[in-house]
Amino acid sequence: MPHVSDRGIAMPDSPIRKLVPFANKAKARGIKVFHLNIGQPDLPTPEIALDAIRSIDRKILEYSPSDGIYTLREKLAAYYHTFNIEVSADDIIITTGGSEAVTFAFMACLDPGDEIIVPEPAYANYTAFAVSAGAVIRSIPSSIETGFALPPVEDFEKLITPRTKGIMICNPNNPTGYLYTREEMNKIRDLVKKYDLFLFSDEVYREFCYTGAPYISAFHLDEIENNVILIDSVSKRYSECGIRIGALVVKNREVYDNVMKFCQARLSPPLIGQIAAEASLDVPAGYMLDNYNEYLRRRNFLIDGLNRIPGVFSPIPMGAFYTVARLPVKDADHFCKWLLSDYELEGQTIFMAPASGFYTTPGYGKDEVRIAYVLKKEDLAISLKILEEALKVYPGRTI
Amino acid sequence: MPHVSDRGIAMPDSPIRKLVPFANKAKARGIKVFHLNIGQPDLPTPEIALDAIRSIDRKILEYSPSDGIYTLREKLAAYYHTFNIEVSADDIIITTGGSEAVTFAFMACLDPGDEIIVPEPAYANYTAFAVSAGAVIRSIPSSIETGFALPPVEDFEKLITPRTKGIMICNPNNPTGYLYTREEMNKIRDLVKKYDLFLFSDEVYREFCYTGAPYISAFHLDEIENNVILIDSVSKRYSECGIRIGALVVKNREVYDNVMKFCQARLSPPLIGQIAAEASLDVPAGYMLDNYNEYLRRRNFLIDGLNRIPGVFSPIPMGAFYTVARLPVKDADHFCKWLLSDYELEGQTIFMAPASGFYTTPGYGKDEVRIAYVLKKEDLAISLKILEEALKVYPGRTI
Repeated sequence: MPHVSDRGIAMPDSPIRKLVPFANKAKARGIKVFHLNIGQPDLPTPEIALDAIRSIDRKILEYSPSDGIYTLREKLAAYYHTFNIEVSADDIIITTGGSEAVTFAFMACLDPGDEIIVPEPAYANYTAFAVSAGAVIRSIPSSIETGFALPPVEDFEKLITPRTKGIMICNPNNPTGYLYTREEMNKIRDLVKKYDLFLFSDEVYREFCYTGAPYISAFHLDEIENNVILIDSVSKRYSECGIRIGALVVKNREVYDNVMKFCQARLSPPLIGQIAAEASLDVPAGYMLDNYNEYLRRRNFLIDGLNRIPGVFSPIPMGAFYTVARLPVKDADHFCKWLLSDYELEGQTIFMAPASGFYTTPGYGKDEVRIAYVLKKEDLAISLKILEEALKVYPGRTI
Repeated sequence: MPHVSDRGIAMPDSPIRKLVPFANKAKARGIKVFHLNIGQPDLPTPEIALDAIRSIDRKILEYSPSDGIYTLREKLAAYYHTFNIEVSADDIIITTGGSEAVTFAFMACLDPGDEIIVPEPAYANYTAFAVSAGAVIRSIPSSIETGFALPPVEDFEKLITPRTKGIMICNPNNPTGYLYTREEMNKIRDLVKKYDLFLFSDEVYREFCYTGAPYISAFHLDEIENNVILIDSVSKRYSECGIRIGALVVKNREVYDNVMKFCQARLSPPLIGQIAAEASLDVPAGYMLDNYNEYLRRRNFLIDGLNRIPGVFSPIPMGAFYTVARLPVKDADHFCKWLLSDYELEGQTIFMAPASGFYTTPGYGKDEVRIAYVLKKEDLAISLKILEEALKVYPGRTI
């Protein structure tokens, strides 16, 4: 048999995915598993989006344009304007989820061997998309002690080589929930300008900022608008991950043209998803506010509860719907597996994401987990109880 | 500004896309343009698929599994069984269109610098997907004189190097409509076996074989089942290109596992498209037969009409819904552009695809065009008339 690609072999295998069989076995034993491990919102998709799908009256489900349906792009431009992001429909390319936006951004900007700097913990699939493009991610760890604030500029500068082509950030952050301050964003801007880098900015969680601190988009930064590639998705903000609609927003025409070549090769993004996404942009303000308030309540409840468990520490996430918490365990990978394979509290257990999958710096995140608050408060209460009781009897406990 | 990727710059720019602005300008002048240039079927999407979309009663449009919805994969396995392709749901990975299936097949099997051999004319985006993967396409031209039959085995063997990893075919073929015979498929099989290659086989047009000759799938070939990667899509057979649902079918577990890493990184294929695709597999036999008969009638009418035009020659395509025809012109790229920018017959003109975009061998296809019969017979009749009259006055005519 011919050999498969080394590239495929180099693709990271997520520690979350490794645990899925254990979760399935627990379920097969009749145990109820609370999923704190995923970024799949449990809140309903807007009725207006479901209605748009249900009332499709086309005879043929044809290809849509490679850059996406124009009216969707127009509405997105108007949406960004409400965040003081001034772009036109012609700066927006509709993609098959935010995933494709990141992939095409890397493909269009990075050649094999090119490097990008990513503060970590970071969304694990950035590495996968970089591997696809043959690019190299150089990570800078941020620390739970500082609530995952931006690492010092000097740490970035130490990593810059002639192959450095960009910086990638996620703001508000998955997995930490950190929201970069204006000061931090200005530091990133200065680096981008000084070294003439691309700034890949994943801002899919912008609707969920809880502290009153302003959301600073990469497009709010002065004099680098031709360096910015904004990654977006409707998945999280409208609870419609399954429709696979994202966007890549770029003012640099050279980048735009390069990205479009990859878009044209794959013909078009999903038609029905675009119809749903366009409808979602007209969602009543009450829907967004209800969801916002619900996540805020859960955040407050979860973080408070985590910090009450002896030995557990969670910073207060400022945005998104995740937190990275430190547990009194040696090996969170083992603890998360143990919870699924060896533990139950009255027939129930929890599935958390070991934080090791969000770091590439050796040794980091070993005692950390990511918890997503995409469960209702009552289930978060049970989950906290399970965590507390489990830690009391877990053999690998450190303190 | 930082430099974009050389990879993006190397992406081929399709001669069809270059003509789109000229078609748009013609339309802006009030000219009716008949689109013979695209592979977008004009026949209706099955009602059963549209109904499935309209009756979605989910509250949340969630991620689907990375390998696709299980019941869809089960139904696809049963569908393949009707073509004597014996695979299980676990051999099938649902992708975002056939495009993603080809991309992931290349990503999972080929490393930068690896080579695949492709008989041409060939679907232009294979090159784009190869560029994405850093792989190299080595082309073997087939000839309109032989109706685009498989080039001699010796021509393949001349191209084989230590970096050769696979052969890619499209059967029935886009753009030529050629259907490989059992004898030809056996020759490909022998090559694949002798040199231990991957066989990437794009079989999305299998429903449309018009001559009574059998459709030979790559999975019908003996002793190479671990070498075969079958590419499929529901786009063409159910007139639902916009839902972006394809499939990659593979028995080789190493390839399967490698492909799945790319699938997991992009999370999931489109949910609603999968629902539509699954419903489409239950389409009444009458729908498929009606479409088949309609394409058959059009094929007969179009090819007959083409060969009646002085100086024009088209082989009789055995499958799909395209033909590559030779025209009495020096430069078909120029002729196709001229038709859009300088010609009209009673306010009407035609948009054909210059065949140059389907060849990489220099000099090939210069006097050829691809014509898709995705227009109804009356429109094909007008299109033939326009072609005939245009050739009478075209300044670049050769004979």
